[in-house]
Amino acid sequence: MYLPNIRVLDCSIRDGGLINQWQFTDAFVRATYQALCAAGVDYVELGYKASKSQFDPEKFGKWRFCDDDDVRRVIDGIEPTAKLACMVDIGRVEEKDLVPADQSPFGMIRVACYIREVAKAIALCNMIMDKGYETTVNIMAVSTNLEREIDEALNDLAQTKIPTVYVVDSYGAMHSEDVTFLVNKYRAALPGKTVGIHTHNNRQLAFSNTIQAIINGATMLDASVYGIGRGPGNCCLELLLTFLQNPKFRLRPVLELIQNHYLPLREKIEWGYIIPYMITGMLNEHPRVAIAFRDSPERDNFVKFYDMLTTPEPDVTAQRK
Amino acid sequence: MYLPNIRVLDCSIRDGGLINQWQFTDAFVRATYQALCAAGVDYVELGYKASKSQFDPEKFGKWRFCDDDDVRRVIDGIEPTAKLACMVDIGRVEEKDLVPADQSPFGMIRVACYIREVAKAIALCNMIMDKGYETTVNIMAVSTNLEREIDEALNDLAQTKIPTVYVVDSYGAMHSEDVTFLVNKYRAALPGKTVGIHTHNNRQLAFSNTIQAIINGATMLDASVYGIGRGPGNCCLELLLTFLQNPKFRLRPVLELIQNHYLPLREKIEWGYIIPYMITGMLNEHPRVAIAFRDSPERDNFVKFYDMLTTPEPDVTAQRK
Repeated sequence: MYLPNIRVLDCSIRDGGLINQWQFTDAFVRATYQALCAAGVDYVELGYKASKSQFDPEKFGKWRFCDDDDVRRVIDGIEPTAKLACMVDIGRVEEKDLVPADQSPFGMIRVACYIREVAKAIALCNMIMDKGYETTVNIMAVSTNLEREIDEALNDLAQTKIPTVYVVDSYGAMHSEDVTFLVNKYRAALPGKTVGIHTHNNRQLAFSNTIQAIINGATMLDASVYGIGRGPGNCCLELLLTFLQNPKFRLRPVLELIQNHYLPLREKIEWGYIIPYMITGMLNEHPRVAIAFRDSPERDNFVKFYDMLTTPEPDVTAQRK
Repeated sequence: MYLPNIRVLDCSIRDGGLINQWQFTDAFVRATYQALCAAGVDYVELGYKASKSQFDPEKFGKWRFCDDDDVRRVIDGIEPTAKLACMVDIGRVEEKDLVPADQSPFGMIRVACYIREVAKAIALCNMIMDKGYETTVNIMAVSTNLEREIDEALNDLAQTKIPTVYVVDSYGAMHSEDVTFLVNKYRAALPGKTVGIHTHNNRQLAFSNTIQAIINGATMLDASVYGIGRGPGNCCLELLLTFLQNPKFRLRPVLELIQNHYLPLREKIEWGYIIPYMITGMLNEHPRVAIAFRDSPERDNFVKFYDMLTTPEPDVTAQRK
């Protein structure tokens, strides 16, 4: 038995770009899109749309901007069975950056926001929907919010036409019981809407949390090839496809993509199960301190990193005495 | 809140030895035992007991035999807060290999068996208990057994004094719903006994399956440092300790052990998330074909491996026509 209403979104280029400033070659992005179409994935997220006034194109690769012409050139000639998606951050995109959907290769534009920005996200989604795109709201870092705040945000979202709202475990801090709590809450507060799940793998729970979300009724699932993504990365697409039994999904093209493109890339840039990210996940904290630590000469001094995050600062201790 | 009756068994040396023929240095084993005592782990499994008539000591390291004198020398001077355990396989140990418990450094001897060998395992456990040791039965590969066979084996075990019976996901094939099904079944069939869980990480579900087993009432938990173990390895001890909130457990000594000993070892021998083992896990198969494939020049040809395991043999196809 399988659930025919499950949809899978691959975010390899968008989330993976957080590691390499979106400096993927055209050949890499093309191979990714081609394989994911062959694998039966529903949506492929190719990066962020962003104003070039806010990000320097000398420093950031083209998938930070997702110009429609770049996208068209890279996917040229591929049967586009997977819809193209991109993401926008609040305040980092302007209305003039988005053409009407019927003039764009993209079919979906997703909005990521913190809970304090939900009103802004709703306004941005309304603009996106007015231009004819599908949209979603991905509320980040929800593991750090009070239930009161979450309820208020969901209540606001319930009044809108936004079709899909994501539970996002930004810090890789959740386990199955947290997922059940949030997916049940989102479903109850958002009748008629789709609930999505986006997990991070700090504690090796990205895939299992996605399974738990499916069990609880989430039907829009994010994953990435070989788990690529900042730090510990995401739910592995190849694992997710082995779990979903819908015959439209095919594992083989993803394995080929991993062996030819993602395994070689993994030898150059780092993601996966790495102890400092496990520690930030355990502490329900943003990975930025772990990212900085992994860039330092002491990158494998796990005890120092643990002490840094769990020992009271000497000054504070002194003041307490 | 935490569950005070949870006990943790570290199987790093025993299960990790499957990768390197138990050729760990004394310094490595000593550092492991010392750190695990400091971490508050309840049991440390140092290897297998086996007859030297069956295994060549020239080929296998000393932790394949766990001679009491070797063990005493390696742990000498360490406050032994963690009980020592070892494992025996059916038919690979003789009664003369085991001295009475009060003359041995070991407090627990575990028996691993396939379901068809449960009667032999019971006889062996009775001998072990008669000598004064704690014991457990670990029924391997239960994901490949019919429910009828499982029920029969559990019924036999219920009649014994064996205190602990393990659910073992030998092939890393299970997800949370399978764990719930089996742990509930074991608990119902074995009133008064402890249910244990031993998971493999083929599909990155070892930790989450252990969490699920805890939720379902398993109280004896296997894990290994940095997940060391054959192929994909086991539930990571460091992850498990972050989940259990019993103040007796300490993460820091495990992190120090990883950075000083397990990370350097991981650069020499391979374990973890590796696609061919993911594929055997998905197929609910013994990893032996993946082990052989990783030893071949084509080790990263994932598509070939996948085809090998999922495509009917050409001869067979020809015969069908």
